[in-house]
Amino acid sequence: MSSNYHLIPQNVNTPFQRSSGEVCDNLTPLLPEEGTDSEVGDETPPSSFCGELQILHASPYSQTERFGFIMGFGTGRYPMRYYWIATAVLAAVALAIGLLIGFLAAPSGGGETPGNPPTERPPSETYQAWLDALKGEDEWVTEKLLEVLDAKKIEEHLRSLTRVPNLAGTSVDKDTAYYVRDEFNKYGLDSVEVVPYEVLLSYPDIENPNYVYVLNSDGEEEFKSQAFEKALTPEENRTDIVPPFNAYAVNGDVEGQLVYVNYARLEDFLYLERNLSVNITGKIVISRYGKIYRGDKSNHAEMFGAAGLILYSDPADYAVDSVTDVYPDTWWLPGSGVQRGTLFLDIGDPLTPGYPSLDTAFREEEEDIRLPKIPVHPIGYDDALKLLEQIGGTRAPDSWQGKMDLTYNIGPEMKDNKTVRLEVNNVNQKNYTYTTIGYIKGSLEPDRYVILGNHRDAWVFGSLDPSSGTACMLELARAFKILIDEHGWRPRRTIVFCSWGAEEYGLIGSNEWIEENIKALSKKAVLYMNVDTAVQGNHVFRARSSPALYKAIYDATKKVTDPSERSKSVFENWIDKSPGSDGQPSIGTLGAGSDYASFMDLVGISALDFRYTYDSALGISSYPLYHSMYETFHLAKGILDPDFEYHLAVTQVWAELARSFADSLILPFNCEDYGIKMEESMDEIKRNSEAMMKERGFDLDNFYTALEEYKEAAKNFHAYIDNLETVDPFEVRSINDKLMYLERSFIDPLGLPDRLLNRHVVFAPSSKNTYFGDAFPGLLDGMFDIDNLGEPEATEQWKLVEKHVSVLTYFVHGAAKTLKEVFQDG
Amino acid sequence: MSSNYHLIPQNVNTPFQRSSGEVCDNLTPLLPEEGTDSEVGDETPPSSFCGELQILHASPYSQTERFGFIMGFGTGRYPMRYYWIATAVLAAVALAIGLLIGFLAAPSGGGETPGNPPTERPPSETYQAWLDALKGEDEWVTEKLLEVLDAKKIEEHLRSLTRVPNLAGTSVDKDTAYYVRDEFNKYGLDSVEVVPYEVLLSYPDIENPNYVYVLNSDGEEEFKSQAFEKALTPEENRTDIVPPFNAYAVNGDVEGQLVYVNYARLEDFLYLERNLSVNITGKIVISRYGKIYRGDKSNHAEMFGAAGLILYSDPADYAVDSVTDVYPDTWWLPGSGVQRGTLFLDIGDPLTPGYPSLDTAFREEEEDIRLPKIPVHPIGYDDALKLLEQIGGTRAPDSWQGKMDLTYNIGPEMKDNKTVRLEVNNVNQKNYTYTTIGYIKGSLEPDRYVILGNHRDAWVFGSLDPSSGTACMLELARAFKILIDEHGWRPRRTIVFCSWGAEEYGLIGSNEWIEENIKALSKKAVLYMNVDTAVQGNHVFRARSSPALYKAIYDATKKVTDPSERSKSVFENWIDKSPGSDGQPSIGTLGAGSDYASFMDLVGISALDFRYTYDSALGISSYPLYHSMYETFHLAKGILDPDFEYHLAVTQVWAELARSFADSLILPFNCEDYGIKMEESMDEIKRNSEAMMKERGFDLDNFYTALEEYKEAAKNFHAYIDNLETVDPFEVRSINDKLMYLERSFIDPLGLPDRLLNRHVVFAPSSKNTYFGDAFPGLLDGMFDIDNLGEPEATEQWKLVEKHVSVLTYFVHGAAKTLKEVFQDG
Repeated sequence: MSSNYHLIPQNVNTPFQRSSGEVCDNLTPLLPEEGTDSEVGDETPPSSFCGELQILHASPYSQTERFGFIMGFGTGRYPMRYYWIATAVLAAVALAIGLLIGFLAAPSGGGETPGNPPTERPPSETYQAWLDALKGEDEWVTEKLLEVLDAKKIEEHLRSLTRVPNLAGTSVDKDTAYYVRDEFNKYGLDSVEVVPYEVLLSYPDIENPNYVYVLNSDGEEEFKSQAFEKALTPEENRTDIVPPFNAYAVNGDVEGQLVYVNYARLEDFLYLERNLSVNITGKIVISRYGKIYRGDKSNHAEMFGAAGLILYSDPADYAVDSVTDVYPDTWWLPGSGVQRGTLFLDIGDPLTPGYPSLDTAFREEEEDIRLPKIPVHPIGYDDALKLLEQIGGTRAPDSWQGKMDLTYNIGPEMKDNKTVRLEVNNVNQKNYTYTTIGYIKGSLEPDRYVILGNHRDAWVFGSLDPSSGTACMLELARAFKILIDEHGWRPRRTIVFCSWGAEEYGLIGSNEWIEENIKALSKKAVLYMNVDTAVQGNHVFRARSSPALYKAIYDATKKVTDPSERSKSVFENWIDKSPGSDGQPSIGTLGAGSDYASFMDLVGISALDFRYTYDSALGISSYPLYHSMYETFHLAKGILDPDFEYHLAVTQVWAELARSFADSLILPFNCEDYGIKMEESMDEIKRNSEAMMKERGFDLDNFYTALEEYKEAAKNFHAYIDNLETVDPFEVRSINDKLMYLERSFIDPLGLPDRLLNRHVVFAPSSKNTYFGDAFPGLLDGMFDIDNLGEPEATEQWKLVEKHVSVLTYFVHGAAKTLKEVFQDG
Repeated sequence: MSSNYHLIPQNVNTPFQRSSGEVCDNLTPLLPEEGTDSEVGDETPPSSFCGELQILHASPYSQTERFGFIMGFGTGRYPMRYYWIATAVLAAVALAIGLLIGFLAAPSGGGETPGNPPTERPPSETYQAWLDALKGEDEWVTEKLLEVLDAKKIEEHLRSLTRVPNLAGTSVDKDTAYYVRDEFNKYGLDSVEVVPYEVLLSYPDIENPNYVYVLNSDGEEEFKSQAFEKALTPEENRTDIVPPFNAYAVNGDVEGQLVYVNYARLEDFLYLERNLSVNITGKIVISRYGKIYRGDKSNHAEMFGAAGLILYSDPADYAVDSVTDVYPDTWWLPGSGVQRGTLFLDIGDPLTPGYPSLDTAFREEEEDIRLPKIPVHPIGYDDALKLLEQIGGTRAPDSWQGKMDLTYNIGPEMKDNKTVRLEVNNVNQKNYTYTTIGYIKGSLEPDRYVILGNHRDAWVFGSLDPSSGTACMLELARAFKILIDEHGWRPRRTIVFCSWGAEEYGLIGSNEWIEENIKALSKKAVLYMNVDTAVQGNHVFRARSSPALYKAIYDATKKVTDPSERSKSVFENWIDKSPGSDGQPSIGTLGAGSDYASFMDLVGISALDFRYTYDSALGISSYPLYHSMYETFHLAKGILDPDFEYHLAVTQVWAELARSFADSLILPFNCEDYGIKMEESMDEIKRNSEAMMKERGFDLDNFYTALEEYKEAAKNFHAYIDNLETVDPFEVRSINDKLMYLERSFIDPLGLPDRLLNRHVVFAPSSKNTYFGDAFPGLLDGMFDIDNLGEPEATEQWKLVEKHVSVLTYFVHGAAKTLKEVFQDG
């Protein structure tokens, strides 16, 4: 296959860039008063990208030492025993006074900001003062941080980031990496680097566009799909926009009858096969977007033998209110709009599974890796109408009917013996993608990393996905540096800001960086906080996360005013609109929808993702303009969030979460919630399969015993923490290690069954829908459709289930052990 | 196969125990004056084995806090600003005075023990005093420790431990676990536990002994091997000694011609096939013990199609001086003596690869795991003579000739058309094996584990293997507690003593415990120090280790007097008799010869193993009585080390090594030696394959670039440490983490090619000889015999080699990165 590559010089033009217009200029930040020394667009080679490394030696007692010498002691004038006595007495005096001051100086009530926040950590002349310093001072930092964040600056960043298309592997990939680097440097982050990885990407061939045709019974072309979306505002009127395509779809030119497969979920195909006896082998299938990840749709189509797959956005899912009142007037998808997107089912550069795409890396052959094997192409609903109205055969069930003005039939019979032809001419190509990393060094524990991140690449402008998140992150970095520079604060732990490349293709930039740095991250990462699309609606806050972070998310959202109802906190609005089963707001499980996936699944770093979103009562699977050309700055500014107050609220939550993990004496993880979540999830599995298990004489008793052990250990561990009065740095460190390594407890280097690189045994992307996360995915997969198996397959499969449950039991027992080891802190 | 099991009640009698004599009494320690409250032999069920957990709260400043309150400060009588001023001034005074005292109190010269060693850590009333305390005080601890260790006590332990056979899975397994537990409790270790694992073991069936026969041409029995070794001293005259057998050999009764295969190395079989055109398919082969691990011999025999394997000890390897002047007069093997031993090629319980053998664990079916598939049985040279003299055919080459009074022929022709019959009746059986763990809690960093260990099980008495090591470890534990109780010292880090079960079968106890605790160990283990056979000769010290530990071993051996030449240190004698290539004593690479294997290979915990050994000029592969019934207390006391001074020297080295890692401010790892060792090893591979590589257009340039990066990073890191003046607990911790995690840098969760559970990419047991360690084992295996491959196999194989070199390059680059991350300590 590689001989078919169009060899396009790196960083010059991708095949769809008809003009080589100097796109870099568009990226100059809108902040002339802060200097225009951007290096965007320069040709510095990758090897010298890294910003100057600034090693800080700001350990808390360096002042102490200097102070001691300045005072002139240590000259040896007095007999030694006087020193002994004096030391004991004076030190005791100093200590006691320090204690008293600490007591008196403590705020009398919760939540008030001292009139003059300290300009730096308390002086550490005494041991006690130093111990006091270890405790940090949270409240004034929170208030100051939320106050410093500025919606206007977020807007400015978003404007800068959405001036040009942000497709991965193009010259803009590098330009924006430098833009982010320059911003970080401007704020004065302690270290900034740009990291390039050469990875396999995929583009449509502009000389040979992809088309879907309707052919009449003589094979003559009757209809041809649009190659481009129509420009509806001046903003979209440019020539460097990648035409709609699905990344990694294999090239092909296939013709045949068309079958409508609803959302192309597994259950849709099984319904066709079992209830309607429709065999799709050799047919072209057409599926609407929505409900599940498009890569799973394509995988299902392939599994069931389809010759090709056409994806389209139905108004039922993307223009719910109307097909006329659409973008640019509303956020609904117009008929020309097409959702782009990757079909890749794994994570990271397809050519280097398990290892980073260093220049020295071995690249697998494309035929040895899991890439789509059938042609796939996406279209809008204007074009889809022309195809669907040709389908005959059985009428599709009511729940399959979309919202276009026609009767949705299943096929495969077509009206007037017409056929459909699908022509895909994509090129897989190795290009560099760039990731920018910025560090704020921690004052006391620089080797503990609180990691924030988002990707930078988009299919087109990406005003929501991902640039709304990037704009927030840049403002967040600025705010932290203001607290450092102007308020004398510095976080206890290091904060790392990550701007990933090539997320859209398969979470590639983050995966490769994690693979390169996996040893350090596995030891040092506290957690990973992802904000991809910061704002995709203005109805309510939404979060997905590890259960270890639920409480921290609740706490942070309680401190931020909700923009939709200013009398409420984000938390209060959230719990009103999305109540969970336990009296708290509902928080979802992480799948593989964004860059958190490799942190959680490969390393076991607790992760979360949040945003402001639309009303779930709309029943839509994503915001309508998702991955279309119309996801513009206008969508954000003109339609969703004119004052950027939702962006600001998300940034404030992010800021407070980052502060709480970067600066708290004891990390705000909660281990008990993990037990509750595991119990709920296993209870549900048990409910759904109890009869089946009983019949096999199989039970989950051992697992539940281990779970009780875990819950007890978690309860005792938190009770121990709650009663802790120490600030012994070693004891604190040890407790925090246990908290942050809890997630690592669930990592099995041997992977889930048949999923070697999905190492988290409790949570993983669903194997049926990569967007969403499953609890106990190995167990769900093992029992999937097991009651339809004959013998001896069923017995063999039950044996695998039994083995996997024993593995889960071991990991839950192991997690309990890590919380209750020999010594409470041992 | 499982239906053939003899179901023998756990902990009652194994099949070879003809009497059920109360063996426990024999274990009562020989120390009546220290109390006889041993619980050995009681029937406490496994679930309540754990010793009482004693949580210590001896954090260094608890005294400080108490002191402050006793002095009565904190009553609030004075205006606050006076406190401020007083605090600053007095604290500064206290600090400066503390500094001065620290300066004046420092020993004036190196190496001298203070007249009155401090009875505890220095008082921590001042911050500086506390910082001073962090530094530890090494020299007096070393001197005191070496002084406290007592050869007499080692002898007493050895006497206790060798009174009865110590076979794994028998009641003695549990009894001795309790003996060790009780000793630990008597010394007052902070926590002691006995951990049982039910694992697959193997025993001969006493009702159906294993035999080797010579049959005449009519099939009549002409000779039958001895079922037991002859008792030569009263000590051996007992009925509960397991007859010679090879663990996990499959049952079978095979008959045929006999072929002599020398040591059954791969090269021996290739020589037979390629040079002598001897096809051994369907033949019984006889191999002498020595040179390589017996499991590899059996594996090779199986690979080449043999029907069965007879192993024997040739006088050339086991009675070099004479076959008459043997045990009990000398250490040479008598003609009746037989080496027992396992044939298992993997590590840990065969039924639970990758997971611990918890009671809830899933057990694989025996047919699904890698166990020997041909019958194998060991005999002594008296019996071997009767077999070898029947072999006709070609005379074996000179280098194959043993030392018995006959001409060694190859076969397969046999004199007078005789044949050989091999009958093996072993039983595989799940039994509990017990591991005892004792902890001395660290004063400052209890969550850092310096781990010492040895196994407790033996094939018979095991006076050298393993009880010489266990006797030393017990004495070591006692000595550390004396330093704590009588001298006020406590190590900075936790010391863990491990007494493993079922090592002889396949390093099972240690592997299962590591698998159960892998998450904690991966984060907390500093290193693992194994002393299996402490003394197997009295010529010179011998060590095998990770390169990260070379320097620490050199340093420790410099502090201990050599028993063979009292004017020299162990180091000086060692460098004289075993000089290495670099001007230092020679240190070998770890294979899988003892319990260090899972620490290194599975988790990446730096490990070492050492002993006092015989003169390598003897050319023998082990001490002659290895794994025979004659490995008795008499061998240790009467022959090898009458005054236990070699045992003492080994214990002293162990003690000083443990102290240095448990108590030093900066861990005494060396990262640069790792670079040197990798370079030497790769240079050798390059030398041996350069022509071949050149022909393929393949080079190692990328690897060497990464290696240079590593060496530079290691050099800079050590320069940084050498210039470090801080005792900031966080900075120290961070540096130490880097040092102790260096070994983890080389762990690939994806394993070596086709060796998923061998995760260390730089060192692993040789796939041709499990006893020994290879550097870059994946590369050696990948290129083994590659020039004899045809096409396309050769091209495919070279592609695998190329991939593996890219993986090695990545890991070396990754190790460099962990040493030079963003911030020096970040």
